[in-house]
Amino acid sequence: MNAVVKGRLIGVGTGPGDPELLTVKAVKALGEADVLAYFAKQGRRGNGRAIVDGIVRDGMPELPLYYPVTTEIHKDHDDYKSQITDFYNESAERVAAELEAGRTVAILSEGDPLFYGSYMHLHVRLAHRYPTEVIPGITAMSGCWSMAGLPIVQGDDVLSVLPGIMDEAELVRRLKDTQAAVIMKVGRNLPKIRRALDAAGKLGRAVYVERGTMRNGGMINLAEKADDEAPYFSLVLVAGWEGKPSEDCE
Amino acid sequence: MNAVVKGRLIGVGTGPGDPELLTVKAVKALGEADVLAYFAKQGRRGNGRAIVDGIVRDGMPELPLYYPVTTEIHKDHDDYKSQITDFYNESAERVAAELEAGRTVAILSEGDPLFYGSYMHLHVRLAHRYPTEVIPGITAMSGCWSMAGLPIVQGDDVLSVLPGIMDEAELVRRLKDTQAAVIMKVGRNLPKIRRALDAAGKLGRAVYVERGTMRNGGMINLAEKADDEAPYFSLVLVAGWEGKPSEDCE
Repeated sequence: MNAVVKGRLIGVGTGPGDPELLTVKAVKALGEADVLAYFAKQGRRGNGRAIVDGIVRDGMPELPLYYPVTTEIHKDHDDYKSQITDFYNESAERVAAELEAGRTVAILSEGDPLFYGSYMHLHVRLAHRYPTEVIPGITAMSGCWSMAGLPIVQGDDVLSVLPGIMDEAELVRRLKDTQAAVIMKVGRNLPKIRRALDAAGKLGRAVYVERGTMRNGGMINLAEKADDEAPYFSLVLVAGWEGKPSEDCE
Repeated sequence: MNAVVKGRLIGVGTGPGDPELLTVKAVKALGEADVLAYFAKQGRRGNGRAIVDGIVRDGMPELPLYYPVTTEIHKDHDDYKSQITDFYNESAERVAAELEAGRTVAILSEGDPLFYGSYMHLHVRLAHRYPTEVIPGITAMSGCWSMAGLPIVQGDDVLSVLPGIMDEAELVRRLKDTQAAVIMKVGRNLPKIRRALDAAGKLGRAVYVERGTMRNGGMINLAEKADDEAPYFSLVLVAGWEGKPSEDCE
């Protein structure tokens, strides 16, 4: 009896949005993989899948992993946690079935797979069981500071990556205690983030970037931005370096 | 009289070492640029230049920018600062001469150009004078945590990027105050970094990575690493996420 050789698991970083920001290695892996897997909301294709639209071959088998509809349950609620854990377990087993059959599965991850990526939930369930490779991707923050032409850190600068949902006093404390900062998950936290930056004396140097490296992306000094709601995937950047950032880069 | 159209300045991130970790956009930019510029030590080719060896076309004009020999002067000494400032000014003018002549100049930068990259010294001198584009690159830290298969941050984790030269008490304080950490510039600071991680209760989760994504790279739990000197470009990673990182990724 011949044992089937197990397939490989490949976590593929798609970068922040521009398809040309995939690495050469990522493009090659997508060409060689047997199955394309990705997380998406019900009825959507998912951002990662949209990014690689012009790259994946016609007819490549796809394994979309649709999140259960959970918007009516709060994230901290036990029901949400148990549903989402079940979902990750089931998703991992669906991917495992492909790997057991000898098929190599590329799992798309926006940005970098191991940097706040949902791929991580499959990685921790599968990487000890199957040959696994993680192909890093350009993070959203790199895409944003590059688009903004903003030298973010130099020399011995400390960089703090902070979630925007953080308590205001805590945000002020951390912003005072760092040279450079990236604030993620801006969304409805924008007014709080602005107050915190002001209290920390860093509002004048804060730049707001929306959908960095996407066709509809843009940037503005945070001080000039209206206080309306920001898309969830917008970022606020505070450069640590005193070097004069250019105004007219791109 | 016809005015010469000015050339474009392109900061090109080469990623952490593996040539396949350049982005598609970076490869394209290198193919289209007229001149290839990069910083290097006297008599060396520079790591960035070595990474793109198999990518740049034969006979592409090169503009190596050699650092002045300054190892005998301490970095904090005024003579060093003035020599290095002169050097960056002169380098910017050499690049500007190419741009004025209408030639597009690609400047190589290891990792990501605006993340601790030497490209930044040219960017701040030139980006307001010439059309400029920055192509982000995979950072050394992304390359390292991907090679290690280490989920670094998830959800609302705070990530702190810290220079290893930092004072020990300060390092302990910051390590206690973060979920995840990347410690850069390990080099001769390794014993101090180990003590600081131990004092912060994070030594057991620290991973030491040497030359991530290069052919001679490797990783080891920091607790098991001998206290000999580490290469300057090694990193220490502390994952913030409690998800069990795989032991056998790559």
